[in-house]
Amino acid sequence: MLKKIIKSIKPVNTKFGEIAQEHLDNLTKPQGSLGRLEEFAKRLVVISENPMPVLDKKAIFIFASDHGVAEEGVSAYPQEVTKQMIFNFINGGAGINVLAKHAGADVVVIDLGVKYDFEKSIYISENCHFITRKVIYGTKNIKNYPAMTRDEAIKCIETGIEIAIEYANEGYNIFCTGEMGIGNTTPSSAIASLLTGKPIYGVTGRGTGIDNITLRKKCEIIEKAILINKPDITDPIDILSKVGGAEIGGIAGLILGASAKKIPVVIDGFISTAGALIAYSIESNTKDYMFAAHNSVEKGHKAILEKIGIKPILDLDLRLGEGTGAALALTIIEAGLKIYKEMATFDKAGVSNKKVQE
Amino acid sequence: MLKKIIKSIKPVNTKFGEIAQEHLDNLTKPQGSLGRLEEFAKRLVVISENPMPVLDKKAIFIFASDHGVAEEGVSAYPQEVTKQMIFNFINGGAGINVLAKHAGADVVVIDLGVKYDFEKSIYISENCHFITRKVIYGTKNIKNYPAMTRDEAIKCIETGIEIAIEYANEGYNIFCTGEMGIGNTTPSSAIASLLTGKPIYGVTGRGTGIDNITLRKKCEIIEKAILINKPDITDPIDILSKVGGAEIGGIAGLILGASAKKIPVVIDGFISTAGALIAYSIESNTKDYMFAAHNSVEKGHKAILEKIGIKPILDLDLRLGEGTGAALALTIIEAGLKIYKEMATFDKAGVSNKKVQE
Repeated sequence: MLKKIIKSIKPVNTKFGEIAQEHLDNLTKPQGSLGRLEEFAKRLVVISENPMPVLDKKAIFIFASDHGVAEEGVSAYPQEVTKQMIFNFINGGAGINVLAKHAGADVVVIDLGVKYDFEKSIYISENCHFITRKVIYGTKNIKNYPAMTRDEAIKCIETGIEIAIEYANEGYNIFCTGEMGIGNTTPSSAIASLLTGKPIYGVTGRGTGIDNITLRKKCEIIEKAILINKPDITDPIDILSKVGGAEIGGIAGLILGASAKKIPVVIDGFISTAGALIAYSIESNTKDYMFAAHNSVEKGHKAILEKIGIKPILDLDLRLGEGTGAALALTIIEAGLKIYKEMATFDKAGVSNKKVQE
Repeated sequence: MLKKIIKSIKPVNTKFGEIAQEHLDNLTKPQGSLGRLEEFAKRLVVISENPMPVLDKKAIFIFASDHGVAEEGVSAYPQEVTKQMIFNFINGGAGINVLAKHAGADVVVIDLGVKYDFEKSIYISENCHFITRKVIYGTKNIKNYPAMTRDEAIKCIETGIEIAIEYANEGYNIFCTGEMGIGNTTPSSAIASLLTGKPIYGVTGRGTGIDNITLRKKCEIIEKAILINKPDITDPIDILSKVGGAEIGGIAGLILGASAKKIPVVIDGFISTAGALIAYSIESNTKDYMFAAHNSVEKGHKAILEKIGIKPILDLDLRLGEGTGAALALTIIEAGLKIYKEMATFDKAGVSNKKVQE
């Protein structure tokens, strides 16, 4: 299944970019004066292969999972917060609930690896849809063991792909990524270091807010995890299974599925971007379908964005995750589309176009 | 009247910042992890002196005026575009109409100095309110003459103040600035150079999109305008009257009035920021009430933002003006307030707070 999807991901057809550009240049504004808003509109046309794209069903996917490495104290919060935050999502009290509502998007929470048995496999509230698609009960502590087996890693990616296809078939036309998992900046930094070639300390940050001593310990743990597990840097699935996390695999899968279905996908912060880097390393055409939401405070984030070659939309010192940056960026991308669809042309408005310069 | 208003502008009361910070730190997220969104919420509390600020009536003010210097060919568009664009605003086809709707804000267009007699002094459409408060019929060509008299410059500022007070009294709780005036980057660059002390070529850009030859000519014209008119750099009103524009005065007045009424004001791009610099030079406490919407492509914009000491919210290569950047930034500021007002606290959500680090 994974192979089939990967094979179906094609580069975008840039011919649609010419159609979009011609329309943009006829709108009542100096050419190019709406800067990146115009870029976003054009990319939506190109990705959807539709001269008048529609963004009426928007989903933010929060992949949730636990991390064995949390027992090393790499996070400022205890592990049960992963589960507690899922109930906060369901009850509508989290940052992502507020920002998803602001963006007019639905929140979908997918349990891929939370170390807790939820009473129900589906919770549907007005604030979010929660579905259990559990692959593991948390990863193993990567300091000593591989995070999961190769089969489990593939299952996480495939679940992300399935979710993408399900929601595409339901008529959703843009996706955002998000995640919840106490400890998940640690595997993200490991992935960032392995796939960008940067040293561990250059891609490891303070996550939820750890102090200097804990930050040093976090770097040492990542170093040990890589030494013990010996991930093959030419094989992103091997990296995911040895030093990754279930939610990171889910995000990678969502991006692969979105790309196969020609759905634009807004990548949130550091952990989401680690998932995006796995997807990009599996199939680089996925880049054509990605929007980088923002420039996170986490050091490794910038390194990954540069590696993939995507430019962030916002720079607001965010480091919460959950998809909050993606939800905000979504409002800006949508503004770009509205400009494209709703502004008058020079002809229609009776406004004189640029004069020919002598 | 001007003196009385200036005297009433006080620095904000930072005590309200402590109240806001305590609330922010109890919300279900790592402290500070929503970065600048938290800053925006906090500033709204401080400015409004209300622990739960409301943003239910939002206005974007487009001050419009013509510029005698346009006859020198400093713009890529002919002068009649100022008037034509006003009809485009009334008909809802301009960029600002689309983005104001996106932000849930009303558009108010004020004719302070357009070289055209509108049939009616008020147009009210579903897209915008247009009001004539004409002070001049365009400025004189600043290459040869002062832009306007000192009395006219004061009248422009006072009209901006009156508009601010009128809309504050109508219950509007946040303002955005915008402008329309073919040729108005030329006076803005002159103001930027005089009040930041930077050389003319360092604060002069391509406006609506002029070529290299025209850009050189534009710099020379600004140089001549300053040499001939000899504005007193210690007197912002003298600068406004000699090398400024009516809309720039109106924006300065709006900011002074907003500050006096404790209303936050979102400053758009280069021309708006030139108006903000006039307001700031008249009374530096106005800074406490300003939000800098974005980092424009226009070179002089950054110089002014640095001079005032305000950090832009967005950086999207915009250079359209009209208030478009301010409208977009408004959506982000409002997202900050929603986070502040709608997120659950740790206690309420039953989420464990940060553990004490060993």
